[in-house]
Amino acid sequence: MLDNALQLARAGRQQAEAELFQVLSIPSISTLPEHRADCRRAAEWLVAKLRAMGMDAQLVQAHEQGHPVVVAEWLGRPGAPTLAIYGHYDVQPADPLEEWRTPPFEPTVRDGFVYARGSDDNKGQHMAGVKAAEYWFGAGGPPLNLRFLIEGEEEASGRSLPDFLRGNASRLHSDYLLLADGGFTAPGQPNLLTGLRGVLYTEIEVTGPPVDLHSGIFGGAAPNPFNSLAHILAGLKDREGRILIPGFYDDVEAPSLEELVDWAKDPVDDAELMRRMGTTALPGEPGYSARERIRCRPTQDVHGVIGGFTGQGSKTVIPATAKAKVSMRLVPNQDPDRVAAGLRDFLPSLATEGTTARLIELSSASPVKVDVSHPGIAAASRAFQAAFGAAPLLTREGGSVPVTLDFQEALQTRLIVTGFGLPDDALHSPNEHYSLDQYHRGTEMVIHLMQELAAG
Amino acid sequence: MLDNALQLARAGRQQAEAELFQVLSIPSISTLPEHRADCRRAAEWLVAKLRAMGMDAQLVQAHEQGHPVVVAEWLGRPGAPTLAIYGHYDVQPADPLEEWRTPPFEPTVRDGFVYARGSDDNKGQHMAGVKAAEYWFGAGGPPLNLRFLIEGEEEASGRSLPDFLRGNASRLHSDYLLLADGGFTAPGQPNLLTGLRGVLYTEIEVTGPPVDLHSGIFGGAAPNPFNSLAHILAGLKDREGRILIPGFYDDVEAPSLEELVDWAKDPVDDAELMRRMGTTALPGEPGYSARERIRCRPTQDVHGVIGGFTGQGSKTVIPATAKAKVSMRLVPNQDPDRVAAGLRDFLPSLATEGTTARLIELSSASPVKVDVSHPGIAAASRAFQAAFGAAPLLTREGGSVPVTLDFQEALQTRLIVTGFGLPDDALHSPNEHYSLDQYHRGTEMVIHLMQELAAG
Repeated sequence: MLDNALQLARAGRQQAEAELFQVLSIPSISTLPEHRADCRRAAEWLVAKLRAMGMDAQLVQAHEQGHPVVVAEWLGRPGAPTLAIYGHYDVQPADPLEEWRTPPFEPTVRDGFVYARGSDDNKGQHMAGVKAAEYWFGAGGPPLNLRFLIEGEEEASGRSLPDFLRGNASRLHSDYLLLADGGFTAPGQPNLLTGLRGVLYTEIEVTGPPVDLHSGIFGGAAPNPFNSLAHILAGLKDREGRILIPGFYDDVEAPSLEELVDWAKDPVDDAELMRRMGTTALPGEPGYSARERIRCRPTQDVHGVIGGFTGQGSKTVIPATAKAKVSMRLVPNQDPDRVAAGLRDFLPSLATEGTTARLIELSSASPVKVDVSHPGIAAASRAFQAAFGAAPLLTREGGSVPVTLDFQEALQTRLIVTGFGLPDDALHSPNEHYSLDQYHRGTEMVIHLMQELAAG
Repeated sequence: MLDNALQLARAGRQQAEAELFQVLSIPSISTLPEHRADCRRAAEWLVAKLRAMGMDAQLVQAHEQGHPVVVAEWLGRPGAPTLAIYGHYDVQPADPLEEWRTPPFEPTVRDGFVYARGSDDNKGQHMAGVKAAEYWFGAGGPPLNLRFLIEGEEEASGRSLPDFLRGNASRLHSDYLLLADGGFTAPGQPNLLTGLRGVLYTEIEVTGPPVDLHSGIFGGAAPNPFNSLAHILAGLKDREGRILIPGFYDDVEAPSLEELVDWAKDPVDDAELMRRMGTTALPGEPGYSARERIRCRPTQDVHGVIGGFTGQGSKTVIPATAKAKVSMRLVPNQDPDRVAAGLRDFLPSLATEGTTARLIELSSASPVKVDVSHPGIAAASRAFQAAFGAAPLLTREGGSVPVTLDFQEALQTRLIVTGFGLPDDALHSPNEHYSLDQYHRGTEMVIHLMQELAAG
């Protein structure tokens, strides 16, 4: 049966590419209202596809204003485990358009890569799961029960899928979840994630005089919220990168020995990391390697500053208000609420005389620790070995995938968090692309994974 | 003759107000191209007015793209001194329009004040000079030679008048210059300025990674220009208000004993200063009173920050660039070029690892020290006493009037820098207004001044 599925996969590559290009042609940008119908079209394409292969598929409109969730099930193997496969059919906006070599929604192949918005993130990844299921159906039926949960709000931080999961937890219970929304550590080197950082995203608003003042008339005696903000931001993280909020590091858990052993095998060294960022330095918290800092240390970044005069020329205003966008990446076992409380308590001591600082919490996601002792991890490892000829390393990701926590907490699902992208795929950027070889091998990895999980 | 002129002034108040309202109805906003014709109309109104009273008046177009300078002369008293009177017919933009109680270019009288853009700054002030001259002509002719130099680019930092002065220095030489573009220290308390602060206006640009990076993927190892900028700005001025640029205070000259004696009589105390700013603190350099800091101490203010993400929501970008608008107010004898050089040399030590800071100089004006030992100061003091019943205090202004330096350096003119505005006139703000009593008394002050200067 496995051999038949693999044979179908190899014979069907051309058709698999054609179908991927179909979905890549749909500009399903979830954050832009003018693409609302495109999002629905992308979801409907998936429903039709999943139904055609024999699954019970439908669109779930969890929130009136949201984008529908594609929910598909095939529970034809009573007694066998159930594998849920996550994905998101929505994509990032494509601007700046002028920087694309070929149009973002006209998939074009160059040197074995397909160039299109959403090719890596995430259409090329969940399509591997869809195709793997199709080949198993073609080979007589999957060896385990299957469920697809493909949302349309990942790039919009929407609540449709999380709320649907939490509201239907018992009905949606799945033994395993495959979440492939990341990438290889390096070409040829797959990974399985043991943790994801969380995030606390805030605005720090500093107020000074009740109205804008003229710096000629009052400069030297007027409180300036921008100067105060500079002292606040400099006081939150020191020049070397240590975060100075009292108690901030208290709950940080060190990585396990098992993880550290695998990290030592990581082919990505500092030089490669600098190449990826285009920098000549890797500044950060002393005492930790850059890799450790990204994976298992919290950090803080300022993303922008709002207020005051930002036009051409020389306006000498002392603005009434300044506001900074500041986020903190959090690691297990930090709690976003506790970190926010610590920051809020710390701000008054940092604001300079005559100014007041206020914390506005915009969003947060808890860090995720992935249990890697369950049999799904060994199964995934064997599946990677079979499809890519390489065993995955246990690593962590610096980014956040908040829905992971909903699966973990509400559905009590054992997670397999991985990805088929490559480090230079330019996701979220112009000329996003995706390796067709990774697509096909990824499909085979999922075929193997289904077999391995069924075998237990 | 003096009595005749004063009598005409008292009899002509209604007409003087009507003429002021005419010029206030012209929206001569120099920075907005759509008001170019209005600027010319305001200038032509003045030329017509000055010609009608018997002066040789014309428009000088010093720069093709600039606004014309009104130049008028009457040299009918050979042997007598020449008084030049400065003013600017251009005004600030009026926005936010919705905050005006009555339209900015429909002058409206309430409680003895005329409300209109430009009423204090500067039409109501130079019109006092124009009307004073007119009354003298009506009374048989001014007792000294007169020159008007009224520009249309004060609010636009234009070069037309400075370049015209420097290019025609010997022809325009005047013994005295009356520059009335400020205001009383407090109602009933006129002043004569002994110094004006200069300004150095810069942008500090910090670059980090060559492109924007994702803080989830790289946060903890990526240099962040905004975090670096916070450390730079915090390193330029400490929490208390001391500027930390090496050598910054080296050339600062202390105020004279004569000035300090007059400052002690100043009716504006800290409580009044806080009332004017709407603040409950007067933070600034330790060891100096707020009044001293504004008048004779340099300072530094951040006006705004450009770059990064400033939209709604939570975008976790590490921006490639951050840029701050930063100005320094300078006092005698600081040199803007020397200060800029000191700042440029200091920046590399403040930028954090992996980021680079660059100084962009946008504009500068030297501080001005006004000689108050010449007979024009005593004459102005007597004229104030006669018109307002109060002797002026010797004070300094925190703001900059760059053209003062052109008169001083190029024309070798003895300066009388003063003003007829009141502290709450809301210049540059919505509902700018001007006391009609100050307008009429100001006119009488100039009538007296002409007599006093002629008497020598």
